[in-house]
Amino acid sequence: MPEDYGRLMEEFGIRSFSELLPRIPSPHKLMRRGIIFGHRDFESILEAMERGQPYAVMTGLMPSGPMHLGHKMVIDELKWFQERGAEIFLCVADVEAQLMRGLTPEETERMAIEEYLSNYLALGLRVERCHLYFQSRNRLVKDFALTLGTRVNLSELRAIYGFGGESKISHIFYPLIDVSDILHVQLREFGGPKPTVVPVGVDQDPHLRLARDLASRVGLVPPSSLYHRLMRGLLGEKMSSSRPETAILLRDSPEEVRRKLWDAFTGGRPTEREQRELGGDPSKCVVFELLAYHLVEDDAELAGIAEACRRGEIICGECKHRTAERLEGFLESCRRERERMLPKAGELAKASF
Amino acid sequence: MPEDYGRLMEEFGIRSFSELLPRIPSPHKLMRRGIIFGHRDFESILEAMERGQPYAVMTGLMPSGPMHLGHKMVIDELKWFQERGAEIFLCVADVEAQLMRGLTPEETERMAIEEYLSNYLALGLRVERCHLYFQSRNRLVKDFALTLGTRVNLSELRAIYGFGGESKISHIFYPLIDVSDILHVQLREFGGPKPTVVPVGVDQDPHLRLARDLASRVGLVPPSSLYHRLMRGLLGEKMSSSRPETAILLRDSPEEVRRKLWDAFTGGRPTEREQRELGGDPSKCVVFELLAYHLVEDDAELAGIAEACRRGEIICGECKHRTAERLEGFLESCRRERERMLPKAGELAKASF
Repeated sequence: MPEDYGRLMEEFGIRSFSELLPRIPSPHKLMRRGIIFGHRDFESILEAMERGQPYAVMTGLMPSGPMHLGHKMVIDELKWFQERGAEIFLCVADVEAQLMRGLTPEETERMAIEEYLSNYLALGLRVERCHLYFQSRNRLVKDFALTLGTRVNLSELRAIYGFGGESKISHIFYPLIDVSDILHVQLREFGGPKPTVVPVGVDQDPHLRLARDLASRVGLVPPSSLYHRLMRGLLGEKMSSSRPETAILLRDSPEEVRRKLWDAFTGGRPTEREQRELGGDPSKCVVFELLAYHLVEDDAELAGIAEACRRGEIICGECKHRTAERLEGFLESCRRERERMLPKAGELAKASF
Repeated sequence: MPEDYGRLMEEFGIRSFSELLPRIPSPHKLMRRGIIFGHRDFESILEAMERGQPYAVMTGLMPSGPMHLGHKMVIDELKWFQERGAEIFLCVADVEAQLMRGLTPEETERMAIEEYLSNYLALGLRVERCHLYFQSRNRLVKDFALTLGTRVNLSELRAIYGFGGESKISHIFYPLIDVSDILHVQLREFGGPKPTVVPVGVDQDPHLRLARDLASRVGLVPPSSLYHRLMRGLLGEKMSSSRPETAILLRDSPEEVRRKLWDAFTGGRPTEREQRELGGDPSKCVVFELLAYHLVEDDAELAGIAEACRRGEIICGECKHRTAERLEGFLESCRRERERMLPKAGELAKASF
């Protein structure tokens, strides 16, 4: 685990996920590989799973840019929970996309269906079994946000988000919608208080702590959370939807995949000779991340690839070529499924509340 | 007009309504008698009326206490506009009542139907021709509030409402719902921008100025406003729903009416003899206000009563007795109509959006 995650965990009181692994039957590869590295209060979810009691997973999608492999991680995780009986709440954060990114309702609706829901279905999530909703249409979430907003004052939000006089009123209010998304699954309408887990990035932890705080003020169960290492961008920097060269998009063509992988940051040596002699470093390599996060299911196979790299038995050009083939195969089947699922995505969006 | 209204008008740039009277065909008694004393930009409403163009009247009711005669004024005014072709928007401010007064949704719903809508119908407003809506159910209003909230910052609201660190987030956000109520009648869904008038008390002028400000930022017509003298409380103080002894409630029994009138503040003299000799002062008298605001339609009759008082021809006991009779007659017919209208009020509430 990179050092900065360790520091963040200490600072925020996030606990190590690896300690829980022995309790989890057939953990997901993201769990086994330490990509899900931390948690807060995940024991209460495990208990619910062990006792066959209801629990919820809450997540959202922001329909404001093309979907990339970074987004896929959460879906893989949702599938894992779905197979284990979780009630899954899937929020289309169209209000957020409209407020923060200035998109129109038509744009967010189209994007939600064509780019997100059809891909979610293509990736194997049974969206029809989820509680799918659009923030804009969900009266319960907005009303509950107003109720929650009577229990928190400006100073508290300022301490978390740093709002000042120039902050727009809707941006000040938005965190309450966010918290309402997370907590409304425990309202009477959905069967009352229950353990809920939210997969988040560490940068979203402040929202989560606010949600936990407000949950206890209104008599609900403080939500648990899971923390993910973010995939790095292909150039070794942060991945970003707005800079397509940093990420593999689910719509990338084989040519784009080849070009992006060719430029990708690796753990290789300056020359082929050095690499053959000294070996590469998979822990620095974003191509290896693609394999570990997405393309190789079998742990032994993944370990074999890492070992071959470290021993200099396989060098970057060859590895990139093989990875590109796996990736193209995956993206091609994703494309086919996405097209097949598009009408269903439209119907689910239409029927959602 | 009392002096303090003059000062307020100057301070807020409100113009005198009496100057407009010659342009208005058959003005309402509240207009003729200077009870509607001020306006902002009412000319644009008059122009729409004169040209037969669409215009709207927007008002709200807060379902949080018993309805009294002070509330009746706005209904009389709405009826006047309704007869003149206005589109009337009637907002049940249940979100406000829940946020600010801590009522439950069940309480506000019951109160809206049993105490407000049935009285509105009883008083002759054709609610079925109004755009009636509940804030809580109106997605358009809430979404538009979030949009408006991206155009105004914390400093601006702080200057108007004085919010501080201890202010609850929902209270900070609420003014945007208020403004959205006023401005959403100009959205595409209701036929686009049009002159709109809002009857307000002077104390609500800050909301109105915020609404005008935001209207121009989003390309809508800044709303006009009408300003009312508030009826004084029966004891000469401010009227208040929470102090029933200060107001005639629409549900008061004949006994309560007699008792309240008996204690009411008048413009009489310490003794009957002095009053016979020196006369009373109707301009100080809350019983005369009841006559002027509600119980006497004919201007000459009202002037006759005032003259008889000033001349000492009628003294307070007798005047209170006659006023009580008028009031009891009015309240009795109101009670009958209210009972008759209750089912209709329930249906309209159910059908409202």
